[in-house]
Amino acid sequence: MFGFSLKPRKPNAAQTAKDRLQILLAHERSGASPDCLPELQRDILEAIRKHMKIDRDAIDIKMERGEGLSSLEINIEFPADQRKA
Amino acid sequence: MFGFSLKPRKPNAAQTAKDRLQILLAHERSGASPDCLPELQRDILEAIRKHMKIDRDAIDIKMERGEGLSSLEINIEFPADQRKA
Repeated sequence: MFGFSLKPRKPNAAQTAKDRLQILLAHERSGASPDCLPELQRDILEAIRKHMKIDRDAIDIKMERGEGLSSLEINIEFPADQRKA
Repeated sequence: MFGFSLKPRKPNAAQTAKDRLQILLAHERSGASPDCLPELQRDILEAIRKHMKIDRDAIDIKMERGEGLSSLEINIEFPADQRKA
């Protein structure tokens, strides 16, 4: 399915400890079915915000749309202590 | 970041046209921060159900938990006409 290539970070004592969340969505469509990723993107970010406090500028989104396959990559970096209770 | 390896399906005229949705989440944790993926899994599936009708048995979930990295792979197959209005 998906191949992983999340690169490990180099430790940097001067920075605040940060967590990273990466989300990759792929929608493979058959025939003329419409692409559902743009709608899902908003709701998935909302689901994540239920659990952690995330700045809008800490979110990096890349979308690719092809004829039969659309993909969406969401990268979020957040301080390790920003989880909601 | 993530490498793609979604394999194309072979066309099969006898089958109902199906769409596939794949979701990969990776949470890279720094220090002792807790893993957030199990909670996110439920809410992301809920977000998807807002947009399409999905049978529980059409969902395949794989989770891997390592010391600093947890990953979650969700594969969903659904008939191409099952989108909600």
